[in-house]
Amino acid sequence: MNTLRPLALVVMGVSGSGKSTIGKLLSSKTDIPFIEGDHYHPEENIQKMTKGVALTDEDRIPWLRQLARVIHDHLEKGSSCILSCSALKADYRRILETDHNAQVKFIYLHGTPEMIVKRMADRQSHFMPLELLTSQFETLEYPVEASRYDTVDTPEHIANTIIHDLSQKTEFGVAGMGVMGSSISRNLASKDFRMALYNREVKGKEEQVAEQLKQAYGELTEAMAFNNLSDFVASLQSPRKILLMVPSGDAVDQLINDLLPLLSKGDVIIDGGNSHYKESSRRLNELRKKGIFFLGCGISGGEKGALEGPSLMPGGSSEGWVISRPFLMVLAARDKNNHPCCSFTGGMGSGHFIKMIHNGIEYAEMQLLAELYHLHKRSGQSAKEISKAFSSYNSGELNSYLLTITCSILSYQDNEGLLLETILDKAGNKGTGSWATISAAELGLPATMIASALFARYLSYFKDKRTAYDREYKFPKPTVNLEPNSIKNAYALARIINHIQGFEILQSYLKNVDHGCELSEVARLWTNGCIIRSELMNSLVEQLKTSSDLLLITQIKEQVQAWKPALESLIIEAIHAGIAVPSFTAALNYLNGITEKKGPANLIQAQRDFFGAHKYQKENDRTEKYYHTNWES
Amino acid sequence: MNTLRPLALVVMGVSGSGKSTIGKLLSSKTDIPFIEGDHYHPEENIQKMTKGVALTDEDRIPWLRQLARVIHDHLEKGSSCILSCSALKADYRRILETDHNAQVKFIYLHGTPEMIVKRMADRQSHFMPLELLTSQFETLEYPVEASRYDTVDTPEHIANTIIHDLSQKTEFGVAGMGVMGSSISRNLASKDFRMALYNREVKGKEEQVAEQLKQAYGELTEAMAFNNLSDFVASLQSPRKILLMVPSGDAVDQLINDLLPLLSKGDVIIDGGNSHYKESSRRLNELRKKGIFFLGCGISGGEKGALEGPSLMPGGSSEGWVISRPFLMVLAARDKNNHPCCSFTGGMGSGHFIKMIHNGIEYAEMQLLAELYHLHKRSGQSAKEISKAFSSYNSGELNSYLLTITCSILSYQDNEGLLLETILDKAGNKGTGSWATISAAELGLPATMIASALFARYLSYFKDKRTAYDREYKFPKPTVNLEPNSIKNAYALARIINHIQGFEILQSYLKNVDHGCELSEVARLWTNGCIIRSELMNSLVEQLKTSSDLLLITQIKEQVQAWKPALESLIIEAIHAGIAVPSFTAALNYLNGITEKKGPANLIQAQRDFFGAHKYQKENDRTEKYYHTNWES
Repeated sequence: MNTLRPLALVVMGVSGSGKSTIGKLLSSKTDIPFIEGDHYHPEENIQKMTKGVALTDEDRIPWLRQLARVIHDHLEKGSSCILSCSALKADYRRILETDHNAQVKFIYLHGTPEMIVKRMADRQSHFMPLELLTSQFETLEYPVEASRYDTVDTPEHIANTIIHDLSQKTEFGVAGMGVMGSSISRNLASKDFRMALYNREVKGKEEQVAEQLKQAYGELTEAMAFNNLSDFVASLQSPRKILLMVPSGDAVDQLINDLLPLLSKGDVIIDGGNSHYKESSRRLNELRKKGIFFLGCGISGGEKGALEGPSLMPGGSSEGWVISRPFLMVLAARDKNNHPCCSFTGGMGSGHFIKMIHNGIEYAEMQLLAELYHLHKRSGQSAKEISKAFSSYNSGELNSYLLTITCSILSYQDNEGLLLETILDKAGNKGTGSWATISAAELGLPATMIASALFARYLSYFKDKRTAYDREYKFPKPTVNLEPNSIKNAYALARIINHIQGFEILQSYLKNVDHGCELSEVARLWTNGCIIRSELMNSLVEQLKTSSDLLLITQIKEQVQAWKPALESLIIEAIHAGIAVPSFTAALNYLNGITEKKGPANLIQAQRDFFGAHKYQKENDRTEKYYHTNWES
Repeated sequence: MNTLRPLALVVMGVSGSGKSTIGKLLSSKTDIPFIEGDHYHPEENIQKMTKGVALTDEDRIPWLRQLARVIHDHLEKGSSCILSCSALKADYRRILETDHNAQVKFIYLHGTPEMIVKRMADRQSHFMPLELLTSQFETLEYPVEASRYDTVDTPEHIANTIIHDLSQKTEFGVAGMGVMGSSISRNLASKDFRMALYNREVKGKEEQVAEQLKQAYGELTEAMAFNNLSDFVASLQSPRKILLMVPSGDAVDQLINDLLPLLSKGDVIIDGGNSHYKESSRRLNELRKKGIFFLGCGISGGEKGALEGPSLMPGGSSEGWVISRPFLMVLAARDKNNHPCCSFTGGMGSGHFIKMIHNGIEYAEMQLLAELYHLHKRSGQSAKEISKAFSSYNSGELNSYLLTITCSILSYQDNEGLLLETILDKAGNKGTGSWATISAAELGLPATMIASALFARYLSYFKDKRTAYDREYKFPKPTVNLEPNSIKNAYALARIINHIQGFEILQSYLKNVDHGCELSEVARLWTNGCIIRSELMNSLVEQLKTSSDLLLITQIKEQVQAWKPALESLIIEAIHAGIAVPSFTAALNYLNGITEKKGPANLIQAQRDFFGAHKYQKENDRTEKYYHTNWES
């Protein structure tokens, strides 16, 4: 049986469902060794069972860990195995699949209580008395992640079907063979997954796209390519796992609508595009009603990340997560402890919300670098000197992916010199920065850095206006006086503020989400594979474990206090030079505002009460009452 | 006949519809003099008509102007009149009602061509030959603003019905007797409109609200008060004009749904609340399908404005505007030329869009004042000195309503001293600032000042955090060094930038709207009655007539150049003192960014191309092609 990579097939179900029978039959047909899980019960468990005493979790866990070791030993040496084990609870199944993501496959033998009772009455040798069956059915947590086979069929038929499914059907489908979809498919295929690739057929534009990819890349040799959605779906093992990699918006809804009549209850749809989190929440709810599990999965890392391991932020259906988890974990980048940069982020549209904030932070990180670059350019430094300066910043604590690529960009020369200087200064955007700003505005949070970066991009777009005004105004352009160490500290502080604001938004959203993940875990997902990975993010993983109130963490507090003068100097220098530094100033204004016990908003409240009778509260008034004054009296 | 104020009743319709008959009958029943409009035709027109030559607009306009003078003379001396005049085109009717908003009432005698033909064949003396009837029906632009009476009834019946409607029914309905609704009702009633007032009945909370208002205010003596929606609607003259003054959101939809079965085609609903412009656009379209004309009408001015004359920004249905225009014009504040601060702003949700941007500008104006106040407080000045400083700013060009009320607030003392200082510095908001920021983000415009003000309010909301951080960080608070003239110039410049950004957003929206009004007209609407009225707004009315590109207008250019150093100094001073000045810095950063031909966004484009293959354009490349570079090669 060709399964591309070694598998541990766990034949599971309640006692009497035929696990051993099927397991042995599979073994004899495939020459894969069969392991009777019950033989690994310690003596105490067997005695309990023969006495008719139900096993507790404490009884079962050592046994399950022993079975996990057995599986591990087989897979480690590159061989498959077949294991019979009731594996009634989700937690038990998680123990069995530890560290062998997507190599442990659950085969669930499903029977009604009546059928099982009949089977059990027929067999005498087994140590499990009939009375325990009720407890087994009560304990069973439906294995959404397992391929299900009904025991109403003959063992021969069941075994043949299982073998057919495992050796002929595909494991994971990707729909949409654009840059990201094809890279993810190649990533998974390179790890010996049997992939199903689908791309729509558009005459003259998109023809045989999946097939051509399969031909082009060696790692896709075993993949199946489709331009027919129905064949694509039919090729997939049950429960089906289909990752959509199509443009966000209507295309996603259209594809889901086309898929729906072809799917079965219990299948999973994963939207890996940059969808709006509210859309993902809506799709989750709509699909839940139809029995389909939906995950909105943020994916960051660009083409390279998709190919080598992106950061994955799945959210939505927890069942969908259990089913697709093994695949997503293999797909993802690894953090410094070799753990996948992938975990379930929570219900609703969490995955895409987190991705949106990732991109918002990214916007501000990019804008800070652009402002730094602007200052350097106006300092009289040569391209080489600027490149050298940025490289020096990129060592140690300030190291980041974005700064690294900036260094590459700053030293990229073509025939005409520095390529960067020939690029038009009109920044594009794909919408997530705007969404992040809008979401913060809706949530009532001062996301000043993301907004400043978004609006800086918008401003850059008005090139004609800028050119006309520049000609008209001819403001003086004095040289900037740079002090490298001070610049570095200012930049470091602005980045801290940017991350603080981003995590504040996340916290505000995740606290209202079922199973919302911890902020530290979000930071961990962002330590590799994604665009905003950095040394700072590594520190934040640990810092967020101690408190979500980052400004109160000692190390951060010391940095803020030490670096604030540098941030002030940088901005004053920019003002003298007439250079816009919206993101740096956003950082400083936020810091000054949020550390000021008594701000000037009392005047705003007085004004609102004056003209609109909106009322106000009073300082140090524990009643929190609202007052109105007739100010013109 | 008691009509509260003198009216000119224009009995209109095609020739032969019975205008003279009804007019004379009305006259004899009411003792109001009847004027036969046709008698005012100049000799040339009569000759043309007897020859069977159709009159042109050039023929008719002098005649209509003559009739308008006749109407004017009657109303001027405080007496009513009845005039027969075909008034077939909307433009003709506008000539007749000039300067007598809501005193000229159109009574349309409606008949089918067949009926009219029969009537005309019966009469010999008239100079209008039968052949002209077709031309009359072709010329007729249906008078949506007129009360319509069908000529199928007897003249006696028609005349009695008209008298009943005019003397017994109400002219204008207001639903929702909150602060704004009741003030607007009192405003209109004080101008001798027969008002219908409605408020829902909620046991124990809102009982007999309209009736109690009627009892409380003398000007409402002639108003009719309702707590039953059906009676309220039935009391109104046709076409009905109903102004909704209920909280924005579901309450508006609920009330509209309740109204719908009670209304007739051709009635007008005006939403005067702070609704979202997209909602108004939706309601416009939904109601259009049902034959109801909808206006989303921005209203600014608070309680006092509503009572004494608010700024009105109606948008949506142009028919709805024609019908309700006379009433809204009377309701509105007057500009310095005594023209109402009210005009049709355009289709879709224009009215509420404009109001939203009004409020956005207001947010930033208030935040600038708050930042100024903060600087003054930290300069060591006493409350009295601060108050004096603000009063000095408020003379001349910087004079504004918001600065005026700020001066009042700064000098308002109660037993414990300055009331302002006891007010909690947590700013509230009602959503329009957030909507404005969101809309700018959606439109791709750098609305940095509105956003900075919104986020400053949000930041102020985190009082506990601010208090905790203040205690923890204890940043030094050096004294601010103020130079009054410099402060004044910095403030003036920041206000200019704020208004420029606001009008940029308006321009971007209005250009895509049918019948979108001119920016100068929006500025004019904002010169009185509303919260952001100011000397600056007065100047902008004229400046926007010359160009929508305000930064290129000579006077503004000179101001910007002269005042920029002051703005820079103010911000640097604030930085030294550790004071957040987000709106002042937003102004400067915008100015620096928008006057810079070559900004640093080329780096952002390079980064985007690096990690996401998003491509870039090149400087001075007329092909506007997109390029991709493999940066890691």
